Amino acid sequence: MPDDPTKVPGVPPAPVGMRSPFEHPARLTPAPVSARTPLDQFYGTITPSDLHFVLTRTGIPAIDPGRYRLLIHGMVDQPTSFSLDDLKRFPSVSRIMFLECNGNTADAWKGAKPDSTVQQLEGLTGTSEWTGVPVATLFKEVGIDSGAAWALAEGSDAGALARSIPVEKLLSDGLVAYGQNGEALRPEQGYPARLLLPGWIGNTNIKWLRRLKLGDQPFMTRYETAQYTFSEPDGKSAQFAFVLEAKSAIIRPSGGMTIPEPGFWEVTGLAWSGRGRITRVEVSADGGQTWGEAELQEPVLPICHTRFRFPWVWDGSEAVLQSRATDETGYVQPARSQLVAARGTDFGGLFNGIIGWQVAADGKVTYVES
Amino acid sequence: MPDDPTKVPGVPPAPVGMRSPFEHPARLTPAPVSARTPLDQFYGTITPSDLHFVLTRTGIPAIDPGRYRLLIHGMVDQPTSFSLDDLKRFPSVSRIMFLECNGNTADAWKGAKPDSTVQQLEGLTGTSEWTGVPVATLFKEVGIDSGAAWALAEGSDAGALARSIPVEKLLSDGLVAYGQNGEALRPEQGYPARLLLPGWIGNTNIKWLRRLKLGDQPFMTRYETAQYTFSEPDGKSAQFAFVLEAKSAIIRPSGGMTIPEPGFWEVTGLAWSGRGRITRVEVSADGGQTWGEAELQEPVLPICHTRFRFPWVWDGSEAVLQSRATDETGYVQPARSQLVAARGTDFGGLFNGIIGWQVAADGKVTYVES
Repeated sequence: MPDDPTKVPGVPPAPVGMRSPFEHPARLTPAPVSARTPLDQFYGTITPSDLHFVLTRTGIPAIDPGRYRLLIHGMVDQPTSFSLDDLKRFPSVSRIMFLECNGNTADAWKGAKPDSTVQQLEGLTGTSEWTGVPVATLFKEVGIDSGAAWALAEGSDAGALARSIPVEKLLSDGLVAYGQNGEALRPEQGYPARLLLPGWIGNTNIKWLRRLKLGDQPFMTRYETAQYTFSEPDGKSAQFAFVLEAKSAIIRPSGGMTIPEPGFWEVTGLAWSGRGRITRVEVSADGGQTWGEAELQEPVLPICHTRFRFPWVWDGSEAVLQSRATDETGYVQPARSQLVAARGTDFGGLFNGIIGWQVAADGKVTYVES
Repeated sequence: MPDDPTKVPGVPPAPVGMRSPFEHPARLTPAPVSARTPLDQFYGTITPSDLHFVLTRTGIPAIDPGRYRLLIHGMVDQPTSFSLDDLKRFPSVSRIMFLECNGNTADAWKGAKPDSTVQQLEGLTGTSEWTGVPVATLFKEVGIDSGAAWALAEGSDAGALARSIPVEKLLSDGLVAYGQNGEALRPEQGYPARLLLPGWIGNTNIKWLRRLKLGDQPFMTRYETAQYTFSEPDGKSAQFAFVLEAKSAIIRPSGGMTIPEPGFWEVTGLAWSGRGRITRVEVSADGGQTWGEAELQEPVLPICHTRFRFPWVWDGSEAVLQSRATDETGYVQPARSQLVAARGTDFGGLFNGIIGWQVAADGKVTYVES
């Protein structure tokens, strides 16, 4: 690096730009099929597409867009195979919304390690601007039977991940998306087209979507019977629990960081709800004894990450930082103890409880159960 | 590519994702110091950071963020040099907004070529979510004199590009940004920190910002006297014309494309205004004789690209597509003839007139003066 950058000729822009050599944002890829987003390094709400979380059981397939087809069949008047160009020809809509894997923050059920980072704990969520064609438009094109109540949505991955989705949801706001953050979907995100179900758990948003089969009941796919059931404390199992409840997390300061000195520090994080808009985020610096109102960054959009910020003066003594989100239905993000009382610790569903970051007197930040 | 992607094991996600090998979005870099965005390939409103337009007279400097400083001096109580960490420690804000180079669509003053593409004509504008510290916060920190009316904003590029900015603008919504679309600024966009002046011509949004010097009058920098003046038809020159007026462009279909067959085609594009929200976009398919109302994608944000869409059935005969934006001040995007009557064709300011795309009977789309 030059001592004075103004004394050195600059370089011209290339057709595609690069990050600064001083910035190395990277996802954690602990399992061969997942990638966790470095939320701790992020600003605002948009997740860069190349750092968006991924969870896929059988890897990312290679798909030639010219040979891509989406088949809609079953209880329809006119079974139809749509090419990508066909899909793009319909009237389109765009929507800025979050996605979250049902397994995000799962470590907190049984107790996360003190050295957990926000990337490890919360890195399976992201917000993008998606563009595509409403499923309702495609259903109108093929003509669905009045008795069609469920659709099998199936992907082109090696596992052909498939989920049963109520037709009602698909008609209300389901989207077959081919655009993300301005450009074509990335392969990891379902290129060339995927299903989006705003506010519903990640695995229902089938990537590399190749088929929607209409029927009058759930299809009871392999994944639905073997994997995606949730254990209740009474020993029963629940299926088809879809909506992501309100949740929030402080991302700065967070686990693994060190606050260098007492004084003013902005506490900032993200809040989101599958049921609509976030209406309130409260922040506590004393482990939940007292709470203050955080500022929400406008525009606050429904089913979208909402950036919150809270001014905090650290006096240099031990502190525990927590955030608590409320959504437009009035639902308040619960304490972990409430969740565990209701669900036990073996529940396979989303952990959306309050999490805590403990700040030690030396400024070190660690995860603490709250 | 496999015949059936489900028969082949997928690849695991890498720490940073890639585009599909079938997608090659790239900027045009006709001059050594500019890069034009492929708007024609885009969906929604967010511009991917690595494809955002660039216009810089002396190239992109290499800057070590650890050695970066922003000096605020001149008519202030406490001249202060801020490190990047200092800037990040202040309360932050995020804002989704557009930038546009004053020279965007400049070819249309004298008459663009029929084979012009939307990338060539309109590719010097983009929308990002920016995060940073309000200039007002920094000015409060250093204490500016009551007589301070202008600030010199200077970059760290080899040309040390500098502009005189009214203090009133800086106080109202000026931002020193270090984040773009979730992550750190890209080097091309002013890494590690730049000035943002919502709605003002691109070159006032000084990149690689190293200095704000407060004074009681404009600083009459080299660029301001030699380059950034605008010629009026009466032979006088205008300086310090800052605000970007309302504008729109159809991006699909657009120059260089071919519509394969008659029938339904969605006409879509972007509209924007430096004075606030877009309130209306009209589309004409008959060269401006009749106009229909386009749908605006919500949320419509102030000083932000707004995606519009218009359903169009092409009957296979020659057509001329145009769009016309209105903003919240009531300002209506003018016809080229109105602009030229007022400004002549040697005006150095923004061309924001209506442009036309002619669709021939064989479906070929070319630029046509309108």
